[in-house]
Amino acid sequence: MKFGSDNQSGASLKVLEMIKVANEDYTHSYGDDEWTKQAIDELKKIFECDLEAYFVSTGTASNSLALSCIVQPWETILCHNYAHILIEESTAPEYFSGGAHMKPISQWADKVTTEYLKNYFEITGTDLPHNSPARALSITQASELGLVYSPAEVKALSTISKDNGLRIHMDGARFANALASLECTPADLTWKSGVDVLSLGATKCGALCAEAVIFFDKELSGTFIHRSKRSGHLLSKGRILGAQFVGWLRDNHWLELARHANSQAAQLSEMISSIEGLQLVWPVQANELFVTMPKTLAKYLREAGAEFYEWYLGALSTNIEIGDDDVLVRLVTSFRTKDEQRIEFCELIHQYFSES
Amino acid sequence: MKFGSDNQSGASLKVLEMIKVANEDYTHSYGDDEWTKQAIDELKKIFECDLEAYFVSTGTASNSLALSCIVQPWETILCHNYAHILIEESTAPEYFSGGAHMKPISQWADKVTTEYLKNYFEITGTDLPHNSPARALSITQASELGLVYSPAEVKALSTISKDNGLRIHMDGARFANALASLECTPADLTWKSGVDVLSLGATKCGALCAEAVIFFDKELSGTFIHRSKRSGHLLSKGRILGAQFVGWLRDNHWLELARHANSQAAQLSEMISSIEGLQLVWPVQANELFVTMPKTLAKYLREAGAEFYEWYLGALSTNIEIGDDDVLVRLVTSFRTKDEQRIEFCELIHQYFSES
Amino acid sequence: MKFGSDNQSGASLKVLEMIKVANEDYTHSYGDDEWTKQAIDELKKIFECDLEAYFVSTGTASNSLALSCIVQPWETILCHNYAHILIEESTAPEYFSGGAHMKPISQWADKVTTEYLKNYFEITGTDLPHNSPARALSITQASELGLVYSPAEVKALSTISKDNGLRIHMDGARFANALASLECTPADLTWKSGVDVLSLGATKCGALCAEAVIFFDKELSGTFIHRSKRSGHLLSKGRILGAQFVGWLRDNHWLELARHANSQAAQLSEMISSIEGLQLVWPVQANELFVTMPKTLAKYLREAGAEFYEWYLGALSTNIEIGDDDVLVRLVTSFRTKDEQRIEFCELIHQYFSES
Amino acid sequence: MKFGSDNQSGASLKVLEMIKVANEDYTHSYGDDEWTKQAIDELKKIFECDLEAYFVSTGTASNSLALSCIVQPWETILCHNYAHILIEESTAPEYFSGGAHMKPISQWADKVTTEYLKNYFEITGTDLPHNSPARALSITQASELGLVYSPAEVKALSTISKDNGLRIHMDGARFANALASLECTPADLTWKSGVDVLSLGATKCGALCAEAVIFFDKELSGTFIHRSKRSGHLLSKGRILGAQFVGWLRDNHWLELARHANSQAAQLSEMISSIEGLQLVWPVQANELFVTMPKTLAKYLREAGAEFYEWYLGALSTNIEIGDDDVLVRLVTSFRTKDEQRIEFCELIHQYFSES
Repeated sequence: MKFGSDNQSGASLKVLEMIKVANEDYTHSYGDDEWTKQAIDELKKIFECDLEAYFVSTGTASNSLALSCIVQPWETILCHNYAHILIEESTAPEYFSGGAHMKPISQWADKVTTEYLKNYFEITGTDLPHNSPARALSITQASELGLVYSPAEVKALSTISKDNGLRIHMDGARFANALASLECTPADLTWKSGVDVLSLGATKCGALCAEAVIFFDKELSGTFIHRSKRSGHLLSKGRILGAQFVGWLRDNHWLELARHANSQAAQLSEMISSIEGLQLVWPVQANELFVTMPKTLAKYLREAGAEFYEWYLGALSTNIEIGDDDVLVRLVTSFRTKDEQRIEFCELIHQYFSES
Repeated sequence: MKFGSDNQSGASLKVLEMIKVANEDYTHSYGDDEWTKQAIDELKKIFECDLEAYFVSTGTASNSLALSCIVQPWETILCHNYAHILIEESTAPEYFSGGAHMKPISQWADKVTTEYLKNYFEITGTDLPHNSPARALSITQASELGLVYSPAEVKALSTISKDNGLRIHMDGARFANALASLECTPADLTWKSGVDVLSLGATKCGALCAEAVIFFDKELSGTFIHRSKRSGHLLSKGRILGAQFVGWLRDNHWLELARHANSQAAQLSEMISSIEGLQLVWPVQANELFVTMPKTLAKYLREAGAEFYEWYLGALSTNIEIGDDDVLVRLVTSFRTKDEQRIEFCELIHQYFSES
Repeated sequence: MKFGSDNQSGASLKVLEMIKVANEDYTHSYGDDEWTKQAIDELKKIFECDLEAYFVSTGTASNSLALSCIVQPWETILCHNYAHILIEESTAPEYFSGGAHMKPISQWADKVTTEYLKNYFEITGTDLPHNSPARALSITQASELGLVYSPAEVKALSTISKDNGLRIHMDGARFANALASLECTPADLTWKSGVDVLSLGATKCGALCAEAVIFFDKELSGTFIHRSKRSGHLLSKGRILGAQFVGWLRDNHWLELARHANSQAAQLSEMISSIEGLQLVWPVQANELFVTMPKTLAKYLREAGAEFYEWYLGALSTNIEIGDDDVLVRLVTSFRTKDEQRIEFCELIHQYFSES
Repeated sequence: MKFGSDNQSGASLKVLEMIKVANEDYTHSYGDDEWTKQAIDELKKIFECDLEAYFVSTGTASNSLALSCIVQPWETILCHNYAHILIEESTAPEYFSGGAHMKPISQWADKVTTEYLKNYFEITGTDLPHNSPARALSITQASELGLVYSPAEVKALSTISKDNGLRIHMDGARFANALASLECTPADLTWKSGVDVLSLGATKCGALCAEAVIFFDKELSGTFIHRSKRSGHLLSKGRILGAQFVGWLRDNHWLELARHANSQAAQLSEMISSIEGLQLVWPVQANELFVTMPKTLAKYLREAGAEFYEWYLGALSTNIEIGDDDVLVRLVTSFRTKDEQRIEFCELIHQYFSES
């Protein structure tokens, strides 16, 4: 019953196996190796386009390096009020960008909307150099609330953004889960919808430590290698990252893993929504569930061995109401979640209510 | 009829004269001079306490240097949604602090309130090192909307802040105007109410280019001189800053200048509020007026030689409604504003309405 | 015949195996796991002291994070003219430290010497805040020239440094090789000789991507976790780093690996020094050899499949003379170097001379 | 007998007078004023070309802002071992550039020479992204040792530099003194010799606090205004800087001031060089003298009221030998130095020797 985070499961065995194979021989370092090349080739096939890709070992590095390539230090990055880059990555975007400004614009909305985006441009000062001009919009796919943006939604946001001179970054820490949830191709969800740079995360969905920064607009990638080196993200034995991606991407393994996680979430959501006293705060579209439940139930579950985190709501920017005796918790499923875990968890809930 | 900004008037003649006197002889450089010492002594007398003070030539430097001394690069600075440090100083706080996060918390409120402040602490994550912890609250006195915080208001904010481990910075670009508006001493409005560091601005109120960073908590000042030097803010002929402050502070000259500006604003406000079709958006408590007026009137006034800026409202965070044919303008008075300017301006407004 | 770099071999199988074992179950993320704890315990045993340790995935991150904890942005880091942190890690120390100054002080010397160190303090300005004060000395063990510092040498350098207020950082990318070369304990070579922070590298000597930052002076580590997070170096699946260290350290595996590499280097050096026309520039004390050889020989070897890098000398700071027809090359052995590789390499050299 | 520094005299009265005149009326802020425009026009006339110019209040800001516009954070700035930007401005270049690397290349030479410059490129690694590539050469005119670079010397350095992709910055804190010393035009000494950006200092030579950053290659100036704003160097009452430059430049006033300072230095040098026991270390080509003298004489002079600084030699990079009983002092003349000061100083020296 480990629903704490998808980064608490290890790696898929196929990914591990590929590391082992890649380890066997001598090879050049710093990404000049066969595994890195193969991983990039896989990405080109999957995204059906030419692209520039780099591999790093954390999502924070992936997001912040990507952003630092598309804004100047005196510019502004727009994002959702709950964006991981805004509230869960310390001050990494500020650090990597040399001090760019982070600006949440979603207010009460579950996702970044065109309405709020338009409004931002309408009422924000553009008096240079006093006002910091927005230059990037970052959206998270699937979002921090477990929601997905459809290609049409991404396209609508990117169109307004580009009309205002912005570049589009997608935080794809759970991109595989979003893709598995939507009926579209990787291309549809990215460059065809206007995404310039994608941080594609494998770690949460079956790798050990592997994230790709993918530039669909190759001209934006010119400084990446310098930024990556000086921030300590150019691994000497670079093949370890390439190999993980090869193992993860080949034969649609990544999507299988994501589909499993999503399916577990969907089934968990179905069971939970049938229970009175519990409430799903947002629709379950990927592998995360946000549930309000009695505090005593949460305690009961934990004492029985379940793991999950209590969730906070971010400074004022929500209209969710939670009863005084209730608590908001997040449940995350992963490629490793087993039917038994899910079933045991729901049985415990039923048990709690029957006892009380 | 120059109501564009109080930084569009020059310096008071007493301040200029003191520069001239200070210029006469040889003296040591980098602040090791008689004028700098005298200025600090004046500040100690005026604030009735021991303190550490440094002089720089711009308000942006003053605010950002002060903030950089009280937060670590991975910490968060809380402020009003309209704070000058947030929206008018490019990304200076991020730059000087090495990438600290800027977080507006005032939402719809005219000033930072204890309600919003408390709420911030209640619902914000404190999971280190993922969440960036708040370490400073910065409030502007008089505020960007021309409002003043009473000593009791400052005290209430600083008490909650300190209970949560924050330090208090006051952006006093118009501190003199606030002081002239309130019935209290400089000490009441600062360290007695919990302010740790004050950026005291002389430029807007009669100096040429002189701002003081005043540490009431002297232990916070330890790194200032290094930060000031490496950011190019340690003037070699430091006496020019000291001399301006001596000329400005002595014999209550600074308060005279501020009182004049405030008085002009008050009279202007009285006249404007009596005119139907114009509306003061916020009460006039210092030397700034925010007025909604017909767009055609604004054009009429400008063509007759009046100067003022149209004001934008900052991203979404306001509940002011402005009619489609109206515009929001800011009028700023200064130590140099003359009765005739004010009267001529109001006459033009009357003329406009009688013509239309 | 792969003598390009010790980062071109993969990982030892024992290290790989430990990753596999660690991967099996759920565990908490971000270093809150059993493997990380065990790795720290191993370090405490090996270094015979209490300590604070963190794991990251690259040597550049390890060095720069360590340095950023012991200098302020306006301070100076002293190092050897050939230090990896100075010339091979882009501008990472400047970046992580927020802009500290890098100062090589070794001039013509093979290693940092007490003479040059003393001289630095004698003739360097100390006029604050104008001169940037030195606050850290970083030495590399084994050095970039394949030399080792004895405990007595480290002690002598650290004593002078500490008398002048500096902290001591050791870049131990090849610490295992140095230790295997010297008759002393890990404690002798570090905290007993005055080292405050050690960047202990496992990657070059048998791990995939694992480096430890070890604070012997625990008070210096207070900001590490924030710096690591915001620079993207806090791995979510942190166990992968802990597991590598457990596999590497246990049962003296690390020293076995290092001894093998050193032994290969020693044997290679013996053979090479017996050949007229080749010259070892520095004594071979760890696993690196620097050899001058005819350009035509270098070409001949490469064509036969040997790999090694031509070495440049660093701006002016050497008194090595190389003949016009000669070239300086670096040969590096690793835990994987086989007798046959070494022998084949030397046979080719003999063959070249017999042919010419 | 104030020979401590040229920044210890105040401003020329003509400069002060211009501030007073500029102060009289309302004007737009942030450099959008008549005085700033006039100053730029003066510069265009004097340098006989189109150019982009900005004004700031300190030399450190001027140098560092200029450098930050011509290098990326991961690039290297070459300079003399005694460069002010290297050893007297804390870590300002690192700070403004976002962490660029500072590399002195002059070794034993009095000035940066083509020999050392060539050598740098010959023996420095160019393996990107590991080695930080040089992108700027900064030379000081007149130099920190009181020496001037002829147009031919500047041209020779800039030619080699540009062949290697570098841009040329000139630290002209004493540019006026250099120009007054050489038989050439401002254009000859700058853009005609390959200088891309000049930091032209007025402060040391008669202004209060006024420095210009002049881009002869206008394309390099694109980010200046953002950098200047976010570092707090965009003065609100910008006219104060423009007015100083207008007063300083008009009617060749700046050159008159510089000629006076140089002439005083030349006469002082003549007298000193005739005295046995004193030695001029470098030829006197502008307004600085470096003299070795008995320690007891230095003490004697100070007790009689003379002011000057003892000079340190910079880490190891000099071959000057100073006797154990001697001391190296720096004497600086300024636009305000009077014949009597100079004569009294020399008489005291004679008196000392006659007494001893």
